Amino acid sequence: MSQSSSWQELVADKKRRQEASVPRNWLVTVPPDTVLDVTAFPEQCGLLSERELEITNTIDVGVLLQKLAAAEWSSVEVTTAFYKRAIVAQQLVNCLTEIFVEKALARAAELDDYLKTTGSVVGPLHGLPMSLKDQINLKGLETTIGYASWVGKYADKDAVLAEILYECGAVPFVKTNIPQTLMWPETYNLIFGRTLNPANRLLTCGGSSGGEGALIHLKGSPLGVGSDIGGSIRIPAIFNGLYGLRPSYGRVPYEGSANSMCGQDSIPSALGPLSNSLSGIKAFMQAVISREPWLRDPLAVRKKWDDEEYALAGHGNGQALCFAILWDDRIVIPHPPIIRALEMTRDALIAAGHKVIDWKPIKHLELGDAIFRICKAGALEDLMVATAASGEPILSSMSLTEEVIVDTSTRPDLIGISAYQLWQIQNAKAHLRKEYLDHWERTVEATGTGRPVDAIISPGAPFAAPPHGKNGNPNYTQVFNVLNYVACAFPVTKVDPTLDAKKPPHQFLNEADEVNYNLYDPITFQNAPVGLQLVGRTLEEEAVIAMTEIVDSALKATASA
Amino acid sequence: MSQSSSWQELVADKKRRQEASVPRNWLVTVPPDTVLDVTAFPEQCGLLSERELEITNTIDVGVLLQKLAAAEWSSVEVTTAFYKRAIVAQQLVNCLTEIFVEKALARAAELDDYLKTTGSVVGPLHGLPMSLKDQINLKGLETTIGYASWVGKYADKDAVLAEILYECGAVPFVKTNIPQTLMWPETYNLIFGRTLNPANRLLTCGGSSGGEGALIHLKGSPLGVGSDIGGSIRIPAIFNGLYGLRPSYGRVPYEGSANSMCGQDSIPSALGPLSNSLSGIKAFMQAVISREPWLRDPLAVRKKWDDEEYALAGHGNGQALCFAILWDDRIVIPHPPIIRALEMTRDALIAAGHKVIDWKPIKHLELGDAIFRICKAGALEDLMVATAASGEPILSSMSLTEEVIVDTSTRPDLIGISAYQLWQIQNAKAHLRKEYLDHWERTVEATGTGRPVDAIISPGAPFAAPPHGKNGNPNYTQVFNVLNYVACAFPVTKVDPTLDAKKPPHQFLNEADEVNYNLYDPITFQNAPVGLQLVGRTLEEEAVIAMTEIVDSALKATASA
Repeated sequence: MSQSSSWQELVADKKRRQEASVPRNWLVTVPPDTVLDVTAFPEQCGLLSERELEITNTIDVGVLLQKLAAAEWSSVEVTTAFYKRAIVAQQLVNCLTEIFVEKALARAAELDDYLKTTGSVVGPLHGLPMSLKDQINLKGLETTIGYASWVGKYADKDAVLAEILYECGAVPFVKTNIPQTLMWPETYNLIFGRTLNPANRLLTCGGSSGGEGALIHLKGSPLGVGSDIGGSIRIPAIFNGLYGLRPSYGRVPYEGSANSMCGQDSIPSALGPLSNSLSGIKAFMQAVISREPWLRDPLAVRKKWDDEEYALAGHGNGQALCFAILWDDRIVIPHPPIIRALEMTRDALIAAGHKVIDWKPIKHLELGDAIFRICKAGALEDLMVATAASGEPILSSMSLTEEVIVDTSTRPDLIGISAYQLWQIQNAKAHLRKEYLDHWERTVEATGTGRPVDAIISPGAPFAAPPHGKNGNPNYTQVFNVLNYVACAFPVTKVDPTLDAKKPPHQFLNEADEVNYNLYDPITFQNAPVGLQLVGRTLEEEAVIAMTEIVDSALKATASA
Repeated sequence: MSQSSSWQELVADKKRRQEASVPRNWLVTVPPDTVLDVTAFPEQCGLLSERELEITNTIDVGVLLQKLAAAEWSSVEVTTAFYKRAIVAQQLVNCLTEIFVEKALARAAELDDYLKTTGSVVGPLHGLPMSLKDQINLKGLETTIGYASWVGKYADKDAVLAEILYECGAVPFVKTNIPQTLMWPETYNLIFGRTLNPANRLLTCGGSSGGEGALIHLKGSPLGVGSDIGGSIRIPAIFNGLYGLRPSYGRVPYEGSANSMCGQDSIPSALGPLSNSLSGIKAFMQAVISREPWLRDPLAVRKKWDDEEYALAGHGNGQALCFAILWDDRIVIPHPPIIRALEMTRDALIAAGHKVIDWKPIKHLELGDAIFRICKAGALEDLMVATAASGEPILSSMSLTEEVIVDTSTRPDLIGISAYQLWQIQNAKAHLRKEYLDHWERTVEATGTGRPVDAIISPGAPFAAPPHGKNGNPNYTQVFNVLNYVACAFPVTKVDPTLDAKKPPHQFLNEADEVNYNLYDPITFQNAPVGLQLVGRTLEEEAVIAMTEIVDSALKATASA
């Protein structure tokens, strides 16, 4: 398309090309929109063979990797199986952006040949198909991050993370949908449209890594990569019943990936994995770190994978841990299913021999304000520049009906501030981080373990996946971005109208709390997955994964008891 | 002093109090200003006993620590010895700000008691007196960073680093002089005046950690702490013949220390040690990191001291390394003594069995421009706020005669920019960092070791300590702050008029190069120490210290051959 194309023309062109990239024989007759829960459809639609269903239903990435390494399953058949299921997912919930079957299968075939010829795997992710948020550049493919203006912007090289994943033997096979700018906790843009929640298509899949969330929810990918600046990995992970890790800044290389607000150094976004299994999260982190990303990304932290930290050397070797539950952030009281999930987790941990105390949240309002103001400092100019080429509208909402151009004359709050003013907010943020760290350290007085609290168990949102356009301020996740704490989302249960009846109104903390209370009714949210996040310290990825395994095992033990 | 005091009154008050803090019996008759080299004076002045001279002449911090731990020397006598020498230094070169003899000796006595009673040391720095740049808060003492407006600003708690040093058994005993704002490579402010270079008092001691440089030069402190945002540790270290380490951001805790331009997150300043011995540098880094600073400073990197990295596991175990020499940065050609130091280092390394190739500098002008523009983004507002209370002038030069208030109407280049504009500069900086990293990695093709260059050997400035007011743009150091590389300054030689004759003019690279050429004559610079810096990668402190030890041993071996 020429530079002077209108945004509508760019979008139409891209949509045509996207449709053409789907193999005709993978099209299925999808259920009508009135069917809300489509999670069973991939198994019912008839497109996948028994073996392909067995492969794609193998949610433990560790097992998939073993079978691939043992050549029990070839990469071509595993990639084909997940590709077919991903294309079914696309037809159900619109979760994909880039589809490149030929390229992916060629790579899978190469890997199969290599294994056959040499008897060894290329790397720790040998043969595994992986989905990537439409932000991680793959050479020769477009990256739009939801801007119509970026249609036709082909990457001239792989992002550093993609390079590393290829070297580890992974097979990137689809890219996934995002909201315009990446800065929304839902997934809608003017090019690819909206991604839906497979458990209930009237609900959002979350965002900004929402395409990943919906795709993996439908087992259309065993392992995906998202990014998280305010919850963008954890929110879709939780809304889709997945595991999702938000690492510290720089533990996973960002270099060469597209982003909005480039140069905003103070609260950087972090790339991280989403999966149906914790073994997927761990395999990803170990594999990526093993490639020494700091030799290719100047912002990547020189810190090897630490097996001692994974063995919880700093946390009593994982025996008799003390977890603290954040029941609410004193801003918005979570809905009944979230409280139930916290109770289930508490009970499971106690049953497993751990200690559970309450977490006292401090300054969550101020922390949320810090990220809001830092991002807002130059966001409008950034948006204007990004959208100028095509004149596309700037979305001011993720709701079904509104698509509003931001008008600077009527939205003075979006006008940028000076560098000096930005420094003042950033300085205040540094003080908040110190206060929170000291607060955490002081819990040593309450744990009885001789250590401060080992991890916080917190809601990732005050609700399960809400209806489209209703996912407000992501404060339950973004406070931990401001603090740069490692946080891992994990699934707990589903909204169950019989267990999760609406409660009588409480004394509302503020207007937002009242709005949130009114949002809930068990029927609207029914069947939505319910998850939580486990929060550890900065650069404690190994320990956070290990502690999430402990929580997960405890929950599974209770469920099967 | 009341809030409405004029800056002159504040300064006069502070000077009176500072003078009163010096024990009367430690005053000496100092040589006249016409005596330029005063380095021998502390030994000649008669204030220090034989034993006090033996103690203070023990420049190896490792040895000092052994003797302290063995109670061969008590902390009280070691602290007294260094204190007396520091007060002599003060009278010679004006290097101190806070003097608190009683407090320091009381602490030393406590430590002696502890060792006597328990038989064990408090920590790895037991009994060692340490000097701190006037930026690191000590409870109950003032911190001015050179602002008259900050006189009377008493710290209500210790900086995290001070806390840690106390826990390690150190005895903070003086604070040292700085330039107003900390943002100059010399040391002059309106409160404490100018610090001089002990080797030649017509020359600058460098800055901003210039008080440290001059004090340690005169062996008035065995180990000091400075800070470095553009060379502020390395420049005074080199100008005074010392070792000085600029660690990566966050390896040493900054929390609780005063600073200018707080909230400027993109190129943070880093605290680090200066010493007459590399054993001092190593002891400091090991001790500080052993206290897990990340549990008190949210910006401190969770990374233990790594003995494997110190053993150069990633650098061929220290055998047959490949160093690259940066002969000049293609902006300003260094003066003859600096070139001679590079040649000496090259020859010594080759003689020690290492390989030496040339380093090709790329984008040093752009890197320098990035830090200049990022700091300038809000610097003026920051200065205005800091100086508003007393109306003190803002220095626009470090020269002897000029003290000029910055006038915004005539200095439009100092007016701040928008947050969005700042992001663009920060983004360009990120790209430069990637380019430099790739450039370094590609040297694997030239080293013959199978590894990229192990370290760069670079000038820390294109000159030895120049006359006051003549230390221009510190580009040889600041490029490595932008890149966040670890860099350790080390001494090599002294300016020697017979060896370092002025050369005929070369083809000047630009006006700055010509100005620099014209600055040199061997007599002006005579006797000035000449040092260099060894530059390694981000978060490679252990390896950089170990490689500087290798260079240092090689130089000493050549000198004694």
